[in-house]
Amino acid sequence: MPVISHRGAQMPPSPIRKLVPYAEAAKKRGTKVYHLNIGQPDIETPKAILDAVKHADIKVLEYSHSAGNESYRRKLVEYYKRNNIEVNHNQIIITTGGSEAILFAVMSCLDPGDEIIIPEPFYANYNGFSTSAGVKIVSIPSAIEDGFSLPPIEAFEKAVTTRTKAIMICNPNNPTGYLYSEAELEVLKEICLKHDLFLFSDEAYREFCYDGKKHISALSMEGLEEHAILLDTISKRYSACGARIGAFVTRNAQVIDAAMKFAQARLSPPSFEQILGEAAVDLPANYFDAVHAEYTSRRDVLVERLQAIEGVTCPLPGGAFYAMAKLPVDDSERFCQWLLEEFSHEGQTVMMAPAAGFYATPGKGRNEVRLAYVLNKEDINKAMDCLEAALKEYNK
Amino acid sequence: MPVISHRGAQMPPSPIRKLVPYAEAAKKRGTKVYHLNIGQPDIETPKAILDAVKHADIKVLEYSHSAGNESYRRKLVEYYKRNNIEVNHNQIIITTGGSEAILFAVMSCLDPGDEIIIPEPFYANYNGFSTSAGVKIVSIPSAIEDGFSLPPIEAFEKAVTTRTKAIMICNPNNPTGYLYSEAELEVLKEICLKHDLFLFSDEAYREFCYDGKKHISALSMEGLEEHAILLDTISKRYSACGARIGAFVTRNAQVIDAAMKFAQARLSPPSFEQILGEAAVDLPANYFDAVHAEYTSRRDVLVERLQAIEGVTCPLPGGAFYAMAKLPVDDSERFCQWLLEEFSHEGQTVMMAPAAGFYATPGKGRNEVRLAYVLNKEDINKAMDCLEAALKEYNK
Repeated sequence: MPVISHRGAQMPPSPIRKLVPYAEAAKKRGTKVYHLNIGQPDIETPKAILDAVKHADIKVLEYSHSAGNESYRRKLVEYYKRNNIEVNHNQIIITTGGSEAILFAVMSCLDPGDEIIIPEPFYANYNGFSTSAGVKIVSIPSAIEDGFSLPPIEAFEKAVTTRTKAIMICNPNNPTGYLYSEAELEVLKEICLKHDLFLFSDEAYREFCYDGKKHISALSMEGLEEHAILLDTISKRYSACGARIGAFVTRNAQVIDAAMKFAQARLSPPSFEQILGEAAVDLPANYFDAVHAEYTSRRDVLVERLQAIEGVTCPLPGGAFYAMAKLPVDDSERFCQWLLEEFSHEGQTVMMAPAAGFYATPGKGRNEVRLAYVLNKEDINKAMDCLEAALKEYNK
Repeated sequence: MPVISHRGAQMPPSPIRKLVPYAEAAKKRGTKVYHLNIGQPDIETPKAILDAVKHADIKVLEYSHSAGNESYRRKLVEYYKRNNIEVNHNQIIITTGGSEAILFAVMSCLDPGDEIIIPEPFYANYNGFSTSAGVKIVSIPSAIEDGFSLPPIEAFEKAVTTRTKAIMICNPNNPTGYLYSEAELEVLKEICLKHDLFLFSDEAYREFCYDGKKHISALSMEGLEEHAILLDTISKRYSACGARIGAFVTRNAQVIDAAMKFAQARLSPPSFEQILGEAAVDLPANYFDAVHAEYTSRRDVLVERLQAIEGVTCPLPGGAFYAMAKLPVDDSERFCQWLLEEFSHEGQTVMMAPAAGFYATPGKGRNEVRLAYVLNKEDINKAMDCLEAALKEYNK
């Protein structure tokens, strides 16, 4: 019998999905499960962009350009300009989700054995793409006690080796909700320029910044023109996760040429969703206002409830739609499983993502969980009722 | 300035796209270009499946299951059953085009430095995926003089090393149009069983078999249950290249588990096109009759015209919608470029794919071209008028 590859065997399973069978079993028993475990918003996808797909007049569903439709890329130039990012349409490749943008970046810039520095905790699927590419993630710790701010420059300096090729950030951050400040981006710039490193900037949550704070893109930083690679997606921006439309954006001509060859090998991104993405650029400027207000109030409810529970620590997230919380438990994975397997409160329970899966260092984050505030406030309150009751019962 | 990876630098550019700038320049000069260079059919996508997308009632465009919608996978079980392939829905992963199915196969089954044997000429993008995965393609020659039939078993035996993990075929074949016989598949089975190799079978053109010949899937061969991996796509089947919907199908449980982890890392395939793919399974049984008749007559016109030109050799293809032709020229790439740059016949010219890009062995296929009969017969005839006139002028 032929055997699978080491790469296939070592490929990390998704930490978020591990508990799915327990959630399914809970539902079968009639327990209502509040899903705070994944970043799947309940916000409706704007009707105007769904309608753009319905009204598309297609006779032959042809391959598009490997970089995506030129009309869409030209529209995106406008979108980025509004966000203080100056690029032209040849510096944009439309990707199949932000996922493919990550893969193109790793493949184009790193060789097997090369290293990429990422502050931990980080988006768990970065592990999968690094395994695919044979690349090593070197993590440097950020801590819940510091609200997950950027580790000090000394930590980066200590992590740099001759194999280091890139630093990767997610800003605003998944899973921590942390929004990097201009000063922190300057630190990243300094280290990238000093060691000639690429800066991969995953900005999936660009629109989700709170308390009047402004998002600064790595691609708008002066001096990083050749270093910054923007990894983008419309999944969260327009509540269109199923579209699988993202973008790989850089002003580095060598990098865009290399990424284009990976893009050509897979022919083209999906057609219908490019129409949806193009229409989205023309949504009225106030589209985000309501969305923004909704997420702000959800965050406030979630964090206030968490902070009111004895023994729980939860820094206020400045962006994205995630919060990390330290719980008064030894092992959050066991606790999350128990919540699904054994616990219910008025016929309800809550599903959260155990945080250990977002850390590279073994043992870290074992008493932390990530909560996605993607449900309405009433449901968030009910989920917090469950959590509060559960912690009391669990720690009895 | 940071530098790109060796992998990015070595990534082969698409051989089909090299001539695109010359075609664009020709069009700008007012010359009509007949595109026989790529497999983009002009056949209309069935209205019923485009309508399924238009009528989809979506409020939130959510992530689908990483393996694709269960309802679609269950439908595909019916489709495969009709094609003599027995699988269940857990043995199918919906992929983003056939391209991603190829990538999942290479990543799940081969490690960097491992080898995959492929008869040449072969689909050029296999090079891109092997570069991505750090895998070595070992080609064994098939020849236009033999109509591109499978190389003898001795050629495979000679190519097998301790690093060989898989054999890959495309059946019916792109670029040769060759349809493998049952006896040839038995040869592949023998060698796979003897050396414990995977058999990757790219069956994108399953429905396109001519002259009453029957397609045999690698996945329907007894004894290959653990070895065969079917790589599939709806691109050609329903003239839906832009959908980017394919499938990775195997009965090997270890392989499907590994591939699922790659699928989870990229979250999900595109949503709208899964609806389109699911609707396609319910197209009436006679849908392919008209398509089939059309392609058969196109092939007949193309091959007859080619064979009538002095100095041209063109074996009759048994499947797919490609023909390979040997031309009375030294360098078909130079000739194809000349056709676009300098030649026109009544204001028209023809674009073909130089065949060297489909061979791994340097120098092979230099006087061959691949022609895709994806245009109507009138256009094919006009394209052949151009080619005939061009060869006379070129060889003066």
